[in-house]
Amino acid sequence: MNPTRTELENIGEFGLIDRIRQKTNYQNASTLKGIGDDAAVIETGGEEKLLLSTDMLIEKIHFDLTYVPLKHLGYKAIAVNISDIAAMNGIPQQVTVSLGLSNRFALEAVEELYAGIRAACAQYKVDLVGGDTVSSPTGLVISVSVVGFAKMEQIVYRNSAKMGDIICVTGDLGAAYLGLQILERERQEFLGNPNMKSQLEGKDYLIRRQLKPEARMDIIHELRELGIVPTSMIDISDGLASEIRHLATQSGLGAKIYEEKIPIHRLSYEVATQDFAIQPTTCALNGGEDYELLFTINPNDFEKLKNHDDISFVGYMQEAEKGVILQTRGGNEVPIQAQGWVHFGK
Amino acid sequence: MNPTRTELENIGEFGLIDRIRQKTNYQNASTLKGIGDDAAVIETGGEEKLLLSTDMLIEKIHFDLTYVPLKHLGYKAIAVNISDIAAMNGIPQQVTVSLGLSNRFALEAVEELYAGIRAACAQYKVDLVGGDTVSSPTGLVISVSVVGFAKMEQIVYRNSAKMGDIICVTGDLGAAYLGLQILERERQEFLGNPNMKSQLEGKDYLIRRQLKPEARMDIIHELRELGIVPTSMIDISDGLASEIRHLATQSGLGAKIYEEKIPIHRLSYEVATQDFAIQPTTCALNGGEDYELLFTINPNDFEKLKNHDDISFVGYMQEAEKGVILQTRGGNEVPIQAQGWVHFGK
Repeated sequence: MNPTRTELENIGEFGLIDRIRQKTNYQNASTLKGIGDDAAVIETGGEEKLLLSTDMLIEKIHFDLTYVPLKHLGYKAIAVNISDIAAMNGIPQQVTVSLGLSNRFALEAVEELYAGIRAACAQYKVDLVGGDTVSSPTGLVISVSVVGFAKMEQIVYRNSAKMGDIICVTGDLGAAYLGLQILERERQEFLGNPNMKSQLEGKDYLIRRQLKPEARMDIIHELRELGIVPTSMIDISDGLASEIRHLATQSGLGAKIYEEKIPIHRLSYEVATQDFAIQPTTCALNGGEDYELLFTINPNDFEKLKNHDDISFVGYMQEAEKGVILQTRGGNEVPIQAQGWVHFGK
Repeated sequence: MNPTRTELENIGEFGLIDRIRQKTNYQNASTLKGIGDDAAVIETGGEEKLLLSTDMLIEKIHFDLTYVPLKHLGYKAIAVNISDIAAMNGIPQQVTVSLGLSNRFALEAVEELYAGIRAACAQYKVDLVGGDTVSSPTGLVISVSVVGFAKMEQIVYRNSAKMGDIICVTGDLGAAYLGLQILERERQEFLGNPNMKSQLEGKDYLIRRQLKPEARMDIIHELRELGIVPTSMIDISDGLASEIRHLATQSGLGAKIYEEKIPIHRLSYEVATQDFAIQPTTCALNGGEDYELLFTINPNDFEKLKNHDDISFVGYMQEAEKGVILQTRGGNEVPIQAQGWVHFGK
């Protein structure tokens, strides 16, 4: 009596998105780009096109309120959406915020959350223009949509990298993942011994990267000032491995990344190796939530960027047949597998 | 140790929205209208302005999957958002859909939901351009955002009704609420006796109004053809009482509604009185989810609309001091209280 049942965990989030996209037709001429990039692109009739993106955050899946302050959570919910507009090389302008709230949350808690939302709106110069506020049977649900604008020739997609383009990464990678590991360890140990000595000291940078990530709008503005339009771009929400594979696959190319060029913070090295006995490179490749930008530039633009102290040049785009490859410090070449965060089945 | 705790149920959804709105500043010139109407209005630089709205639906609060087919749910999630754009007198163009899914849902279930989403997109000529698909610890969460467009002079707000304007209602009211009561009764009786004889026969209209409501885009197009721009408008998602109070209060006016003019379907009368022993007028005033339009017109436009067979003229706008009043069939005048749906604390 039970018809075919295909578990979502067997096809994964990206598999599901692919299926949805394949069945979706576009009927309006104003839809310039639909599903498949960091944001949709919509014709407005004006000089600038509209960018639209949305994200949903669910308690126990995306955040744990035992160690995430509500104000930080509100800030982060906005920042990660702004990051999607940054990844299209656009300027964000408006956000909507919908909340599902159980009666566990009092007005004071909701106002803390909104204090963080407002702080992020001020930081990124966006206006909170709407939303929905509903009851939830159990946890907290936050859904944010963001609207941005960019001229057609400024918009940067994932699928337009060219052979030989230089692969760039902003900031450093892996720190947000390590921040999460530290917070999770603290929670576990506190449960075992409420009188424990906290091990958070000196780890502020990693914890901040997890709790209060920033969208790299500063880089977007700098690129504009330098007259550089990346040839492709994506934000690093799921780890470098997953994102470079998206850029390469969608551009019909391969990519070569040099392990020694991947930007990793001194403290990330230290904590990864000493506290958790994991490879710092693994944190950068497969740890998520750094919200840095991964983009490619034409080699002709390298001169303008080469001395930028917050951009690292980690490799170049190559023929599809050569694959998406990591050249390790030891000189070995290993294929980069996409792990990303697959939440289904958790 | 417990600081002041104000329960959300004590301030209600509208109270919470008011607090959020009061603390929100707008810093971008492109924000033409923020929180407080059916949709935000955003400058695009083009001839048409952007309308943006969003809604969140949560399992057990907004729908019960024991009697709501997933395909209908997908359709309804889109239709209720389209209704917000209709209520601004705009034309919807794009939607995004974010889903929170527990592992109870197999791929086949998600595809049923999307089949309904796609059917609604085809019906309302909108494109599905993005979204997010995440795991949820328990129930299903659906968050939809919709983008529409309208010229500045076509956009209709809630706060612009004028004294003496005629109050209009599309379709009929109360049926969606009665449909929900029938489905709920069926579920309860089925739990008590799985061999029960179904009592759904002949109730199709009411059940359809609950499970598969339509946004009144047909009326929006007809008003354009007739050259009529309503003086104010809102969609009836929470019952006529709540919505007429929004229009009146935000316009700085009162309103008078004639009970005998409120459009109620023959079957709604029958089922309200015979099956549930409630006043049909109460269903129309306080039952939600009809998604009809409530709007006001200048009396000069009455001639053009008076023979429309799907628009009822239910009253007129009056001085604020006279209040928001229902004149009953018996000739009494009673103040209309806003009940709406207050989900908090459920």
